[in-house]
Amino acid sequence: MSDDAPASDRFGEFDLIGRYFAPLATDPGAFGLTDDGAVFDVPPGETCVVTTDAMVAGIHFFASDGARNLGWKLLAVNLSDLAAMGAAPLGYTLDFALPKGWLPAQTDAWLSDFSRGLMQCQAQFETSLLGGDTVSTTGPMTLAITAFGSAPKSKVLRRSGAQVGDMVWVSGTIGDAALAVKIRQGWTPPNGASFPHADKRLDMPFPRLALGQSLRGIATAAADVSDGLAADLGHICEASAVGAEIRFADIPVSAELRALVATDPGLVTLILAGGDDYELVFTAPAAAEAQVRAAAEAARTPVYNVGRIVAGQGTVAIAGPDGKPIELDCLGFAHF
Amino acid sequence: MSDDAPASDRFGEFDLIGRYFAPLATDPGAFGLTDDGAVFDVPPGETCVVTTDAMVAGIHFFASDGARNLGWKLLAVNLSDLAAMGAAPLGYTLDFALPKGWLPAQTDAWLSDFSRGLMQCQAQFETSLLGGDTVSTTGPMTLAITAFGSAPKSKVLRRSGAQVGDMVWVSGTIGDAALAVKIRQGWTPPNGASFPHADKRLDMPFPRLALGQSLRGIATAAADVSDGLAADLGHICEASAVGAEIRFADIPVSAELRALVATDPGLVTLILAGGDDYELVFTAPAAAEAQVRAAAEAARTPVYNVGRIVAGQGTVAIAGPDGKPIELDCLGFAHF
Repeated sequence: MSDDAPASDRFGEFDLIGRYFAPLATDPGAFGLTDDGAVFDVPPGETCVVTTDAMVAGIHFFASDGARNLGWKLLAVNLSDLAAMGAAPLGYTLDFALPKGWLPAQTDAWLSDFSRGLMQCQAQFETSLLGGDTVSTTGPMTLAITAFGSAPKSKVLRRSGAQVGDMVWVSGTIGDAALAVKIRQGWTPPNGASFPHADKRLDMPFPRLALGQSLRGIATAAADVSDGLAADLGHICEASAVGAEIRFADIPVSAELRALVATDPGLVTLILAGGDDYELVFTAPAAAEAQVRAAAEAARTPVYNVGRIVAGQGTVAIAGPDGKPIELDCLGFAHF
Repeated sequence: MSDDAPASDRFGEFDLIGRYFAPLATDPGAFGLTDDGAVFDVPPGETCVVTTDAMVAGIHFFASDGARNLGWKLLAVNLSDLAAMGAAPLGYTLDFALPKGWLPAQTDAWLSDFSRGLMQCQAQFETSLLGGDTVSTTGPMTLAITAFGSAPKSKVLRRSGAQVGDMVWVSGTIGDAALAVKIRQGWTPPNGASFPHADKRLDMPFPRLALGQSLRGIATAAADVSDGLAADLGHICEASAVGAEIRFADIPVSAELRALVATDPGLVTLILAGGDDYELVFTAPAAAEAQVRAAAEAARTPVYNVGRIVAGQGTVAIAGPDGKPIELDCLGFAHF
């Protein structure tokens, strides 16, 4: 880890690094976090892909979320951006502002859990911590990860390549993470049912790295579903200067959420506008349908055709189950 | 910039990005900050070097420092780490937590100045913003930059290569930034003199990128002087499993600071233990002295031989002007 902070700010930075972060620096290019920086190689003929995401306690996460889940999630959301670009991960750096008021035992317990979550995620997706900086703050815990990956230069997936006539595809299931958010915000499901599957989707999102890499040279545009399906497909449409028409009935939804929506149609908002699923939404020519299905098979990731790209300027039209359009207001709530 | 934050946290993130950060994304690989990530190429045969540094308001900087200086400094300290590894910059990402309570006009004014400082620094050192994440915080302004560069794989400068018999070199002048810190902490210089040169060294450090690259294949070890000369040379000695003997009289010191030390010998602490100068301290074989001088000339950066590497386990011995050893206590204060 870098040591450019004044020594007076350290409160044992080197101890923390050695105990919790050095074991994450499994890549020899991390130099055990003892140098001014780290090195990593980009495979010949490939370009480096970089992305970064920050999280602040009380805003993006809560103490009750558990530090271990948070470690997984912070890395996973960065890897999801790499997945959306078709990149394979090469490593990541971590910046970390620890609250000054925390007692040593509290800091130790938190970092022990947090680093365990990071380790679990980096082991799952075969990547390594390469460096970082640990500072103290008078405010809430603040974290940022910057992740690096690579892909063949001509095959990086972008948001801007969707063409009129392309099919629109979605991986996995959509809306589960938003259901978990809604329940944590105080909503009571009918019969007081619990949804552990939805909780896991929110707490430990699974970045679609294998799918993203399988789609290199096949998908014309891709994004990860972090803001909500309509919004993220909207980003693709804006960047590509096209529109999209999707069929609500074809959006993949878990059986649990589907049953809830049947009793409360307002919950379609969770499917169309809820974020945090970290699935991929992507486009590909209709002629490439077999290739898409083969790529998804190779990546062991289910994908579903939900609509098509049409002429337009960034608008996403959604046909409801009855064929009538569903409108989303600016806050993402669905109107029928 | 990534948009993985929940939409409700945004307070116009896209506006801020467009106004203040998109103009910094001069590299086409940044995609105008509109995609899930960015791309950059590492020159063939070179390895990617990465480093990151975070800063928190009230701890690493104060409102009175000026946002423009801060923009320069945050990027410059990261580039200094690249310099210490002999790397040429390829780009950087920025994570940014803005205080929730700030009024729009305050945010605008601050970001306008901050982004101007970043632009000034990235133009000086020919690099570009490639991506980032903007979030809000209930705490103080918190910033992190991750910078990446490249160097020929076999020529990355490390801390661990110093050999017994090597000469120890220092660039520029040492101690000026620590003098500025001391004055801002309330110390009154004799006759109430001001030291604008020292202020500039603290506020707008000049990373020694040209020197670092010139020293590829010549220096055996290098670090930037951010914690203080004795500490940073100590890091080299620890990583290399050697010791160092340096001559206080040969450490390059500005005329202003030299005059102050003559009146108050306790100020040698600023030279030995003051950080924030962002010069390079490095080692090279005695037989390479002419090569070191030619490399420094090529980089238009003055360098000075201040001592030599000896057998040891991380200890740095400092001979005072009178030949007697100067001892530093654990807080970095000098004892005679």
